[in-house]
Amino acid sequence: MAQLILATYPPPLDPAQEQFLVSTIKDWTIQNGLTVRPPPNFVPEEAGQKGVLATNAPVTLFPSPFPKSCFEEARAVQTVYNELYAEISRDEKWLGEIMEELIDVDDFISNLWKVHLAVKKEGYVQKLSLGLFRSDYMVHTPPGSTAPSLKQVEFNTISSSFGGLSSRVTAMHTELLSSPPGFPISYPRHTLLDGKLPPENTAVETLSAGLAAAHTAYGSSKSSPSLPLCILFIVQENERNIFDQLALSTRLTNFHKIPVFRLKTSEILDRTSIPASNPSRPLVYTPPHSRSTPFEVTTVYLRSFYAPTDYKLDRDWAARTQLERSAAIKCPTVLNQLSGCKKVQQVLADPNRADHLARFLPGKDQATVARIRETFAPQYDLAPGGRGRELALNPETAANHVLKPQREGGGNNIYKTDIPEFLRSTPETEWKRWVLMELIQPPAEAKNIVLRSDGQVVSGNVVGELGIFGTILWSSDGEILHNKEGGWLMRTKGKESNEGGVAAGFSSLDSIVLY
Amino acid sequence: MAQLILATYPPPLDPAQEQFLVSTIKDWTIQNGLTVRPPPNFVPEEAGQKGVLATNAPVTLFPSPFPKSCFEEARAVQTVYNELYAEISRDEKWLGEIMEELIDVDDFISNLWKVHLAVKKEGYVQKLSLGLFRSDYMVHTPPGSTAPSLKQVEFNTISSSFGGLSSRVTAMHTELLSSPPGFPISYPRHTLLDGKLPPENTAVETLSAGLAAAHTAYGSSKSSPSLPLCILFIVQENERNIFDQLALSTRLTNFHKIPVFRLKTSEILDRTSIPASNPSRPLVYTPPHSRSTPFEVTTVYLRSFYAPTDYKLDRDWAARTQLERSAAIKCPTVLNQLSGCKKVQQVLADPNRADHLARFLPGKDQATVARIRETFAPQYDLAPGGRGRELALNPETAANHVLKPQREGGGNNIYKTDIPEFLRSTPETEWKRWVLMELIQPPAEAKNIVLRSDGQVVSGNVVGELGIFGTILWSSDGEILHNKEGGWLMRTKGKESNEGGVAAGFSSLDSIVLY
Repeated sequence: MAQLILATYPPPLDPAQEQFLVSTIKDWTIQNGLTVRPPPNFVPEEAGQKGVLATNAPVTLFPSPFPKSCFEEARAVQTVYNELYAEISRDEKWLGEIMEELIDVDDFISNLWKVHLAVKKEGYVQKLSLGLFRSDYMVHTPPGSTAPSLKQVEFNTISSSFGGLSSRVTAMHTELLSSPPGFPISYPRHTLLDGKLPPENTAVETLSAGLAAAHTAYGSSKSSPSLPLCILFIVQENERNIFDQLALSTRLTNFHKIPVFRLKTSEILDRTSIPASNPSRPLVYTPPHSRSTPFEVTTVYLRSFYAPTDYKLDRDWAARTQLERSAAIKCPTVLNQLSGCKKVQQVLADPNRADHLARFLPGKDQATVARIRETFAPQYDLAPGGRGRELALNPETAANHVLKPQREGGGNNIYKTDIPEFLRSTPETEWKRWVLMELIQPPAEAKNIVLRSDGQVVSGNVVGELGIFGTILWSSDGEILHNKEGGWLMRTKGKESNEGGVAAGFSSLDSIVLY
Repeated sequence: MAQLILATYPPPLDPAQEQFLVSTIKDWTIQNGLTVRPPPNFVPEEAGQKGVLATNAPVTLFPSPFPKSCFEEARAVQTVYNELYAEISRDEKWLGEIMEELIDVDDFISNLWKVHLAVKKEGYVQKLSLGLFRSDYMVHTPPGSTAPSLKQVEFNTISSSFGGLSSRVTAMHTELLSSPPGFPISYPRHTLLDGKLPPENTAVETLSAGLAAAHTAYGSSKSSPSLPLCILFIVQENERNIFDQLALSTRLTNFHKIPVFRLKTSEILDRTSIPASNPSRPLVYTPPHSRSTPFEVTTVYLRSFYAPTDYKLDRDWAARTQLERSAAIKCPTVLNQLSGCKKVQQVLADPNRADHLARFLPGKDQATVARIRETFAPQYDLAPGGRGRELALNPETAANHVLKPQREGGGNNIYKTDIPEFLRSTPETEWKRWVLMELIQPPAEAKNIVLRSDGQVVSGNVVGELGIFGTILWSSDGEILHNKEGGWLMRTKGKESNEGGVAAGFSSLDSIVLY
């Protein structure tokens, strides 16, 4: 029944209807900051360098239908997930054993681990850690299943993005569904849209409240004389997705009344310092435009430093170390960042490994732990003689799997029957870099239409990925000071593109209507 | 004293301070829809045609100081001005006599008058008229004056623009002045900024409330069967200033819950009709994207049809006539549009003419009428033997004047000693097209810095022009149903550019701090 309705969605558009929706969305996105800086191949370098042009973020014309039961389940388990990853980050020994398997094949993980070890040796001065997480899911509908289920694609512990823009896509689809007021005719009629609006999306409020909770928990200035306090956003050079980030800093400034500054990774060592004479190690930030008014940083929010390309020079590792050893609350710490790597997810989800879940969630009942486990798709390493290697090398079983690198960056996954050949052409010593995951089977009939950032309108079969946002503030001694779920992201990708990377134009921002 | 402080304004910026302000403003404008579609010379045609790119509206880095007494006076007289122009529009005979002087030298005015005559012959079916006005002023500080006074530059009765963007510039300067919260350091310190914020700017609320008042006053549908009601924005092709207009339609939709549609002038005859069988002449709009759900237009808001270039074909005049003869409330009517022409302002402000002011404001006391008159700069026609001709042809007196064409469009004014020579090279039969106005002398020491839409940062001496918004809804029998003042616009122009036209890049949007 549901599948029959889905197959007719979205309702067909005649040229005038498409023209109306596309032009309305082109204007709405700019009016409401649902924007990105334009891709370099779209504007000439000279105009681009002025840094003034913007264009719409890639968005769908229609919200996508999503099973209500799956949406509710994803929300229901989020605070448990928050706790799980806080607990994993606290277990340095367990995490260290997993990292050990990767250190000799992965420079990036190795270098991150070294930052942790260096600070550990000196001694951490901040017991609190902040997580702004996003758990990403797909709807799983294998042939013969009676009801759709929820399967986790990945769990993000650093730079979980698109909370800002996602809220705005929700607002846009909501406005289109209800306009003009009293006589909604922006969309052609369809059962799935009739009287429906997307669920509330509180991503901006939730993520900002997490940062504000850390800011408050930091307490008073540790400098003498004491300094005004601020939150610091660490950002990349030439960030195209800046308006997503500004949604959070604006909320922090205007609602929470907290000073926020943005600082590029390359400028950390120039603009911040830790007074050598102060054993509390406050992180002092001096705004270049007001050098006589230094601030003390309560919370460092990383929207950079998540990928190897963010560390071009030794200086960048020194900068990361400076943040890590400071008294500022990190979002995230190095350990929390590492807890989000694919290998950890694989170990948790490996049906042939010991049950780590229950150990990390000692306070939860069996049913709750089982609900978390239900969201896992089976995942394996490629250890010699193991089940994963067997499944990956046999073309028949490989056809039901995807091979993922430890780190994602777009375009690096190996799919299905390509897996055996790929592995045979790769030295066996490298196999540790990869995780084998059973394929999630999303509804095959899903379709949508996308307005890309370059103005192209593309329609076709799509796959949707739902992210649920959560924030948690915890202490290294196990106390949890703040643990919230709230807000979501729907990303919709053309069937031909298998990875995320909305900003790169492969996929688009969407919202949902529940069915 | 005030002049000494003004001479030090704005405070100097070091490179880091300028860089901070410019990059913050580049991001703020895009995040908050303080935007325009980019000028065609800034983006290549191919990218421009996609209609997705946007850039910041030209804005000043600093708010401009403005005398508090002048600001308050401009606000205080606005509802009287609203009434004055409503009364002038009601006096068809008086207006007709003035138009007669222009009809043989001005095709545009002649054609507008013909539209009025044609509808008058058939009989108007709508007694109500709506005005969304903006009265523009400069601060006048002639040598030896003890206090600055307020002089009107022009009174706009059609397409009074920038209410939407002006509110946002006010919000931007307000945010910069108070950020970060508790420790405002975005600007270097200056006496004129210390503890100051721009006055509240309710332009969007005021203008939208005017349109909503008309919508409500229209009453129920005059169609049978009755149709849902809407407001129609009549707009130009390829409007670059669309985000200014969308601020009003968004407010009407989201706050007043009134359906609003946008319609290009070229599409009026295709998408609207007046049923021949219905003597009430309702204007029926059929949305191209929903042809089965026609709407009846309560209010036609013109953001086009104000300049000769908006009428390229006979068809465009037919379209204007269709609107005028319909039952929709026009903002403005042809007569109200004509009341805004320079010639009317000149007749009112001509010191050698009869006093028309008192006649048009019969209910006002002498003091009120005198306050309106105080805002006039002396203006003259160039009739043979008249005072205007004498002042214009003598280089010594011409030096204190500007020669303005009936219609503005940017770049057409003739200044000071250029006037005598210009007139001598122009056939005397054409002189009726021009109005001579005594120059207003703004504070000479005013300076500011502008971020243009192409990313260039320009600083220098500037002239500011303050516009006050007002709305009035009146009946042809003299009843006034709604008369409000609210919201303002500050435009700041480089000293080298003498005319308005913010969208064209000659001037920029600004806000004010009072002193």
